[in-house]
Amino acid sequence: MSMDIINRLESEVRGYVRSFPTEFKTARGNRMTDVDGHEYLDFFSGAGALNYGHNDPDMEATLLDYIKSGGINHGLDMATEAKTRFMETFEEIILKPRKLDYKFQFPGPTGTNAVEAALKLARKYTGRSGMIHFTHSFHGMTLGSTSVTSNAAIRNSAGVGLSDTTTAAFDGYYRDGRDTIADLEALLADSFSGVDKPAAVIVETVQGEGGIYAAGFDWLREVARVCREHDLLFIVDDIQAGYGRTGPFFSFEPADIQPDIVTLAKSISGMGSPMSLVLMRPEIDVWDAGEHTGTFRGNNHAFVTGATALEKFWRDDQLTRHVDEQGERIRTRLQEIIDKHDGFDGEVRGRGFFIGLDCAEPDHGNAVIKQCFERGLIMETTGPGDRVIKVMPPLISTAEDIDEGLAIIDEAIGAALAA
Amino acid sequence: MSMDIINRLESEVRGYVRSFPTEFKTARGNRMTDVDGHEYLDFFSGAGALNYGHNDPDMEATLLDYIKSGGINHGLDMATEAKTRFMETFEEIILKPRKLDYKFQFPGPTGTNAVEAALKLARKYTGRSGMIHFTHSFHGMTLGSTSVTSNAAIRNSAGVGLSDTTTAAFDGYYRDGRDTIADLEALLADSFSGVDKPAAVIVETVQGEGGIYAAGFDWLREVARVCREHDLLFIVDDIQAGYGRTGPFFSFEPADIQPDIVTLAKSISGMGSPMSLVLMRPEIDVWDAGEHTGTFRGNNHAFVTGATALEKFWRDDQLTRHVDEQGERIRTRLQEIIDKHDGFDGEVRGRGFFIGLDCAEPDHGNAVIKQCFERGLIMETTGPGDRVIKVMPPLISTAEDIDEGLAIIDEAIGAALAA
Amino acid sequence: MSMDIINRLESEVRGYVRSFPTEFKTARGNRMTDVDGHEYLDFFSGAGALNYGHNDPDMEATLLDYIKSGGINHGLDMATEAKTRFMETFEEIILKPRKLDYKFQFPGPTGTNAVEAALKLARKYTGRSGMIHFTHSFHGMTLGSTSVTSNAAIRNSAGVGLSDTTTAAFDGYYRDGRDTIADLEALLADSFSGVDKPAAVIVETVQGEGGIYAAGFDWLREVARVCREHDLLFIVDDIQAGYGRTGPFFSFEPADIQPDIVTLAKSISGMGSPMSLVLMRPEIDVWDAGEHTGTFRGNNHAFVTGATALEKFWRDDQLTRHVDEQGERIRTRLQEIIDKHDGFDGEVRGRGFFIGLDCAEPDHGNAVIKQCFERGLIMETTGPGDRVIKVMPPLISTAEDIDEGLAIIDEAIGAALAA
Amino acid sequence: MSMDIINRLESEVRGYVRSFPTEFKTARGNRMTDVDGHEYLDFFSGAGALNYGHNDPDMEATLLDYIKSGGINHGLDMATEAKTRFMETFEEIILKPRKLDYKFQFPGPTGTNAVEAALKLARKYTGRSGMIHFTHSFHGMTLGSTSVTSNAAIRNSAGVGLSDTTTAAFDGYYRDGRDTIADLEALLADSFSGVDKPAAVIVETVQGEGGIYAAGFDWLREVARVCREHDLLFIVDDIQAGYGRTGPFFSFEPADIQPDIVTLAKSISGMGSPMSLVLMRPEIDVWDAGEHTGTFRGNNHAFVTGATALEKFWRDDQLTRHVDEQGERIRTRLQEIIDKHDGFDGEVRGRGFFIGLDCAEPDHGNAVIKQCFERGLIMETTGPGDRVIKVMPPLISTAEDIDEGLAIIDEAIGAALAA
Repeated sequence: MSMDIINRLESEVRGYVRSFPTEFKTARGNRMTDVDGHEYLDFFSGAGALNYGHNDPDMEATLLDYIKSGGINHGLDMATEAKTRFMETFEEIILKPRKLDYKFQFPGPTGTNAVEAALKLARKYTGRSGMIHFTHSFHGMTLGSTSVTSNAAIRNSAGVGLSDTTTAAFDGYYRDGRDTIADLEALLADSFSGVDKPAAVIVETVQGEGGIYAAGFDWLREVARVCREHDLLFIVDDIQAGYGRTGPFFSFEPADIQPDIVTLAKSISGMGSPMSLVLMRPEIDVWDAGEHTGTFRGNNHAFVTGATALEKFWRDDQLTRHVDEQGERIRTRLQEIIDKHDGFDGEVRGRGFFIGLDCAEPDHGNAVIKQCFERGLIMETTGPGDRVIKVMPPLISTAEDIDEGLAIIDEAIGAALAA
Repeated sequence: MSMDIINRLESEVRGYVRSFPTEFKTARGNRMTDVDGHEYLDFFSGAGALNYGHNDPDMEATLLDYIKSGGINHGLDMATEAKTRFMETFEEIILKPRKLDYKFQFPGPTGTNAVEAALKLARKYTGRSGMIHFTHSFHGMTLGSTSVTSNAAIRNSAGVGLSDTTTAAFDGYYRDGRDTIADLEALLADSFSGVDKPAAVIVETVQGEGGIYAAGFDWLREVARVCREHDLLFIVDDIQAGYGRTGPFFSFEPADIQPDIVTLAKSISGMGSPMSLVLMRPEIDVWDAGEHTGTFRGNNHAFVTGATALEKFWRDDQLTRHVDEQGERIRTRLQEIIDKHDGFDGEVRGRGFFIGLDCAEPDHGNAVIKQCFERGLIMETTGPGDRVIKVMPPLISTAEDIDEGLAIIDEAIGAALAA
Repeated sequence: MSMDIINRLESEVRGYVRSFPTEFKTARGNRMTDVDGHEYLDFFSGAGALNYGHNDPDMEATLLDYIKSGGINHGLDMATEAKTRFMETFEEIILKPRKLDYKFQFPGPTGTNAVEAALKLARKYTGRSGMIHFTHSFHGMTLGSTSVTSNAAIRNSAGVGLSDTTTAAFDGYYRDGRDTIADLEALLADSFSGVDKPAAVIVETVQGEGGIYAAGFDWLREVARVCREHDLLFIVDDIQAGYGRTGPFFSFEPADIQPDIVTLAKSISGMGSPMSLVLMRPEIDVWDAGEHTGTFRGNNHAFVTGATALEKFWRDDQLTRHVDEQGERIRTRLQEIIDKHDGFDGEVRGRGFFIGLDCAEPDHGNAVIKQCFERGLIMETTGPGDRVIKVMPPLISTAEDIDEGLAIIDEAIGAALAA
Repeated sequence: MSMDIINRLESEVRGYVRSFPTEFKTARGNRMTDVDGHEYLDFFSGAGALNYGHNDPDMEATLLDYIKSGGINHGLDMATEAKTRFMETFEEIILKPRKLDYKFQFPGPTGTNAVEAALKLARKYTGRSGMIHFTHSFHGMTLGSTSVTSNAAIRNSAGVGLSDTTTAAFDGYYRDGRDTIADLEALLADSFSGVDKPAAVIVETVQGEGGIYAAGFDWLREVARVCREHDLLFIVDDIQAGYGRTGPFFSFEPADIQPDIVTLAKSISGMGSPMSLVLMRPEIDVWDAGEHTGTFRGNNHAFVTGATALEKFWRDDQLTRHVDEQGERIRTRLQEIIDKHDGFDGEVRGRGFFIGLDCAEPDHGNAVIKQCFERGLIMETTGPGDRVIKVMPPLISTAEDIDEGLAIIDEAIGAALAA
């Protein structure tokens, strides 16, 4: 009955509710339950915001204690105990062991706001306005972020011209195996290329909304080198790929690079609460006081659970190893499933638990996830023509959870093909 | 000791922490307490996000129950019990009694994201790109919102050209008492005015960041009429002025108008948690599914406390009457304080509990709030040269709380003048 | 028969040929003759390019001699005898007596190219991108010039967003007699006005394409003062109003100001040949070599006739006095004609021989000029709804010529009203 | 002595006069003479505006007759005998034999104005704003044309953001021999490429200002095909390459394509007088009357000489054959000269008489043309670092003239290397 108000009064812009047409009530770990008591296995993880699953008991406990103690909830950007504790924990557990030297900016608590802050800062620091982003990039829905996003439908919805940005080809974009770095370098080196010298290059190490394309670590290192040589800032948008989604805390760690600016959001609060974070090399911190503000920068509930998440999951490399091992297993198993179903061409892409199953045919993707949902598995599609199924279980999923989900996928493909 | 990490590692962009240099720990109602046990009276209300004060006990209780019951926290834009309950409550308590016919869009949970959604929608609906905003307007820090913001420092920080927007003069902008509506109308009616026909006009009924300037209700009605006659959408950004800050739930109610689009955020969750909301007349809802997304659109903790806030404060007009009465009293009293202090010129502006004390001299504003903070009162400055002190107590402040704060202001002005 | 190829193959963009549908062959002074031997009195002067009439015998003689002597025609921006002679003559006859200290830039030979050069230079000199132009302004059809043009139809035809420009109200724009300078100053002085600090203000002293509106000299002086005080460049586009059209050589002379940059084109070559000229105060000349080029900058035939025009018409003030006197007479007489015709409301505006007859009704303007053409008088309409008839005889027109033309106008109005 | 006024009062923007520091007086064919009687051989042809040499005796005679007969000089866009004759001649001699179906637009008489008109028209016709241009492109100095120009120095001088344009790689841009068409096609076909679907593609068949790069005819045909398949207009800017410079009248003839829009200027008037022309397929002619105007569209002297040029040079293919043969010879000979000089690396590029001698070292180009000028030969450099010498003799140059010039080049290289 309550779905009625959704259908009646929620704007046509509503999206996921169309793929998962039920009213959810509770959730724990990788299971969600709707008002009728049906349980669902979550292989979507809030699009990367729930890497540790729903309502982790330790985070929940910390949050309950915090609320009961009268802890400040909304703090603008004032100093609070919860905030300083988050910063100290992040410094100790994340930055120091990785020898990363970053300052923190807490923008408005959305990924797109972190990207907007990063773009502004890079433009201010360099005095240049241009930005290079990549084919199939996605960085957000506010105007600045959309201007570095490559999806035509999103770009068109801006309703104004998108300027000061240039697309470059992502790793492997052209199927001829060409070195896209050399092309980028040629354009930057040539004063007659028509590509104005930009402020920065912004990249996702694994493109989420563009169809799950993972850049090679060599390629990322080369982008970093080109930025350095051409005096451009190198921004990694780790909003969807960070916090272990691909294995390590930062997705770029295996490339052995230190980006100038890193944007984080999604799972940074641990429990799915709104929060975002921009990390910047100290010398880049040329902001004036109050130059980029926002009312909800101090979501202290998020700081509290975010610190617990770091304590619980990142003091050692267990989670990373789990994601490496199980990710490998998922990808292998998905390939077997594809191979087994005649008439279902597909490609498995991605890294860690950030996996795309490209169904080749636009219709197949949505048909399969519909069958999955009917069998109690939550997954979404993305990329051009919604062709790519995102296989993104919470990182805490066990081998058994994964087998359960994969079995449903197998069945769902069969059912979709039969239909 | 913990302030150390703020000074050491938080970006130079940090702002409020410079005005209130202590580490806060707990808060309740209109009182905040720092780690050393010092208590502060809050006359700032999280810049309008804490209209009901900090950690309202009823909202807190609902939230604790919700968390303990395993209620979903992060829900993207899936249907959840918490979300449908919020929508039903909002429809019943807010929309129906006011005969307002609106659909709901839940964008990313920041005010600026709501504004970006509103601008996109207006552009899509009309097929035009231009936007008219007003002198001293503020609508946010992401690129689209900044393009309709009038503060030069904020505009410059964008680092790119801001296009497709035109400034018009706000009510009373020119001190000669001129009818600024007639000017706007002249520009729109003249095909040689150089002002391209825009998609919409976006207005704050009381300008918060621009220096606390309140538009007259006649003027607002005239803006609505001009929009209607010129086939423009009329957008009210009620992010800071809504939820009773000026008295009624929507600040535009006394003008007896129905804007085409209304943006809300700040106090909509009741407890200061990140949430935003766009209301649109149903015929304007031309969004495609998923055309404006965002990971944190489904902050269910906010839905839960937001529904409680509506139930508790908006079933009758008690809060509105309280704000009307006490607001009047504050403004009168502030005028007396100004008059009393020789050498302190000032002007009191605003409506309800959305009050500005314009100190005339740029230095006076910050000097006074510094003295206030030392005496345990939290207030901020805004507007050109930070000349205007924002006097924005939580709406639940009693007459006694208000007297306490006003007494400190009185003292602080004296101390500032002496210094 | 030859009109056939016009109708068959000339683009729909063709304009004047629709108002004057005949094939012209020869012209002398203020008379044009078509292939059938019909003679026409010219009260349009090539939209200001033929201030000295068609084919002035002295200019013609100089040009014939030059061609016969093998004089260079096309010289890019190389030094040529014809070019240096033009510069020397301009310095001696125009600049020195007026104590004007300017350097010369010869851009591509169109008015719009001169404006584009002026905008670029002002942006480079100030390091700012914004431009203020006025309601009803017209500065040209290339993208930069169109962005400072106020006509909606022209702006829309650009097909892209026009950015970095702001409209301000021209002298007398609001019919309440308000001081539009004060408004402009208020916007520039207020860091929250939403009007970004621009590079320059560009103004026509008499707006030609906007409907023949003449700025007062006090107003122009005030614009100059505001520019000086706010550190903006002051650009006068004298392309249509210069070379005596309003009386003096530069239309701004009676205001006793020295603009930072002046753009010229139209009658600068004397005989209607393509040529343009940008004058700039020496300290503003921050161009790099070759930074603004163009193939036809060295139209030496134009230099030759241009020098003759200066020698013949500007060694003394005869022409200026003639234009002052006869202009006054035309305006008086036009007012009498308007008053005489019942049902024909109108307003006479302008200065010198730059006169507009605003017909109040959109239909009247074109009806009248059609009747004029049938009676052998060439005039055009302009402004919103083509409501304004441009009365712009060559400056060499005698009192008799003028009476002849005015008599036709009188008759034509009668005929138009009768129809 | 007269050079004094150039140095004293001509803006620093002056360019060619720095390469050729003398005051020219007369010219005939491919010889120019300065005020001191020194003669120079012209291998530059007014940057392509003097393909038929200076002051062709037949054009000169026609022009003298026309002037003496009282022929109209300045005609706005009224019909004149001179204009209709030009159109008829162009239709008969150029369009009909080539089976080209085009309508004529005469914009303001500069190449850049023709390009601005073409961009506007393409945007209006398609309703899209984007434009694809190529690496090393040059289309002009007004804002719209500059936005499709790739030279960084020119782009920067605009002083505002250049939007709605995208660079694609020209034929052979990447030295690995890659098919740049496939890349372009991939970007256009992919809705996630970040390249918004444009209105048109604009191309020079031989890039003049970008360093003399000639596109292959297959490549041009492929660009035309891609445009057709993606519903984009195909614009050829033939301003520098047309009128026989590469052999045929239109440089694209050997590719056997019909562009949707063609821009012409430079040599279209035959004698170097300002004139420009846009040709468009009839169905594209969606202009409204007067939508793109300009005072000097009717430069009748240019129409007169332009018609004579067509009559004299394009009734048969003699000129084309001459350019083909002698062009081949020049390129061969230049290669021999390069090979002969140790320490002088170079590359010869181009087609017909549109030849570039890439000197590899930035310093060599200007050093060589300086030595040439001292020996009485006029040539200019272009491209990145002014590395490329433009070898562009008038098309009427005989084999002897060419040998004379080549001998000077040979000597000059030797002298430059010695210095």
